[in-house]
Amino acid sequence: MLLVVLDLVGIAVFAVSGALAGVRARLDAFGVAVLGVTTALGGGIIRDVLLGVHPPATLRDWRYLLVPIVTSLVVFWMHPAFAKLRRGVLLADAVGLGLFTVSGTATALAHGVPPYTACLIGMTTGIGGGALRDVLLREIPMVLRKEIYALAALAGGVVVVLGARFDMPAVPTAVVGAALIVTIRLIALWRRWNAPIARGIGT
Amino acid sequence: MLLVVLDLVGIAVFAVSGALAGVRARLDAFGVAVLGVTTALGGGIIRDVLLGVHPPATLRDWRYLLVPIVTSLVVFWMHPAFAKLRRGVLLADAVGLGLFTVSGTATALAHGVPPYTACLIGMTTGIGGGALRDVLLREIPMVLRKEIYALAALAGGVVVVLGARFDMPAVPTAVVGAALIVTIRLIALWRRWNAPIARGIGT
Amino acid sequence: MLLVVLDLVGIAVFAVSGALAGVRARLDAFGVAVLGVTTALGGGIIRDVLLGVHPPATLRDWRYLLVPIVTSLVVFWMHPAFAKLRRGVLLADAVGLGLFTVSGTATALAHGVPPYTACLIGMTTGIGGGALRDVLLREIPMVLRKEIYALAALAGGVVVVLGARFDMPAVPTAVVGAALIVTIRLIALWRRWNAPIARGIGT
Repeated sequence: MLLVVLDLVGIAVFAVSGALAGVRARLDAFGVAVLGVTTALGGGIIRDVLLGVHPPATLRDWRYLLVPIVTSLVVFWMHPAFAKLRRGVLLADAVGLGLFTVSGTATALAHGVPPYTACLIGMTTGIGGGALRDVLLREIPMVLRKEIYALAALAGGVVVVLGARFDMPAVPTAVVGAALIVTIRLIALWRRWNAPIARGIGT
Repeated sequence: MLLVVLDLVGIAVFAVSGALAGVRARLDAFGVAVLGVTTALGGGIIRDVLLGVHPPATLRDWRYLLVPIVTSLVVFWMHPAFAKLRRGVLLADAVGLGLFTVSGTATALAHGVPPYTACLIGMTTGIGGGALRDVLLREIPMVLRKEIYALAALAGGVVVVLGARFDMPAVPTAVVGAALIVTIRLIALWRRWNAPIARGIGT
Repeated sequence: MLLVVLDLVGIAVFAVSGALAGVRARLDAFGVAVLGVTTALGGGIIRDVLLGVHPPATLRDWRYLLVPIVTSLVVFWMHPAFAKLRRGVLLADAVGLGLFTVSGTATALAHGVPPYTACLIGMTTGIGGGALRDVLLREIPMVLRKEIYALAALAGGVVVVLGARFDMPAVPTAVVGAALIVTIRLIALWRRWNAPIARGIGT
């Protein structure tokens, strides 16, 4: 139940980020909807392929398709001024990363994989949809350009794994894990917490 | 038997679209062959990964490799004038989309997945190879740029699912489904049946 | 044991190629590490997904993550002058292609797939990581641009399959197969052994 709610909210949020990115790239309504759906469902499908869940859960439940289609079309018709699109993509991506990493890690644990593997699959779940969105729009994925992106996801996954290890209740653990990821990403975005660029390449 | 024929014809047609796109991008003979094969086999491999068919059927039957290699090399040596390459890619893509969506939907049904899931997997099969071709050539995939692309695939998948539901004979159902997809795509291409671009972005 | 060593060395070498490509694209330390890890692990994950190994072996063993992270960071802090980055990417890619194709083919055979399928899965293992690296950096993958790339991989896979067929000892077979691939790639790089570009497109 918790996982379904996390998944559906994460799907809506990632659909917003995909749809905004699609509006920014001037796609038409169909393109925006397809990109929103792909961004929203991509991470979960990759997770299920890695876990050997056939066919992926995301393709069996109509709510998982309805939510991102409606969200994308709402974004398309009501999107904010162009200048704010980029910020909107980044914010929605941060929240989606938090929700999906946590639900991906918890799903992997529920399938009986070891904690270490669950962390990596959770990270991949969180990062996958956004990376797909960026590759489809011919942008270098955020996880390569944004400081502290993969590390933020990893931190949230570790919270979930530790919570499961010490039998903490699932809901607060998930909330703390997701909040940690979102907070790290937002701080990084707002403080431009840049890591050093390799020396010797000039500018 | 029907599925094998549909698959092989679809593979040849998608190989034409991939090879023409490769010639357009000025790849050499090896690159054209690799791109033709990837475009031709990509959709079916994605389908089998989603269905849990290991290893993918496409990698077990040498005809599935021979057909796209020969097709790609024939295209390489006999390709039409440069001006017509783009139109050729679009036409071959439309026919391939029709054949693969129908065969993908039917294959998914044959593996016992529910009709809703079969439609989505069929769509993914039809769209996958072309999307891979476009991403590899650094183009934004047609499914994001071309109006009525995903919707056309969905319409054909629904025909196959309904045909199976009401026990219609398989061959005419498949032909009608594929013809529906190809017709919708061709009308969209020829009438530039554009959906509205999101307002407020200017031109 | 042989496979683990081949895999770990191949992972380190592909991490070098990914990290150098990341430095070249001016990613920060985090981006370089993520790209190094993705390039290094991508091929093996694709291989396991095709073979139905869930979750992929690469995600279960911490050495498979530690090796590419350390390698990438070392490359980041010690990378050579910018002018030599491109050559470094190409050389590391050639060696990684050899090691991964051979280990991928042998792993597929060990999972009981037929020799023909093992060759194709081995090729995909060798080509996959580098293709992922190039797509993430918005470059057209080497396998499409570099003459004799897929063919080199195929030649090495055939050596492994023939060696298994005639009960040759595994280690020398693997060494010969990998050396064949690397040699073909290096000759192609150094002699610019170009295949003809499709005629009629001009320059």
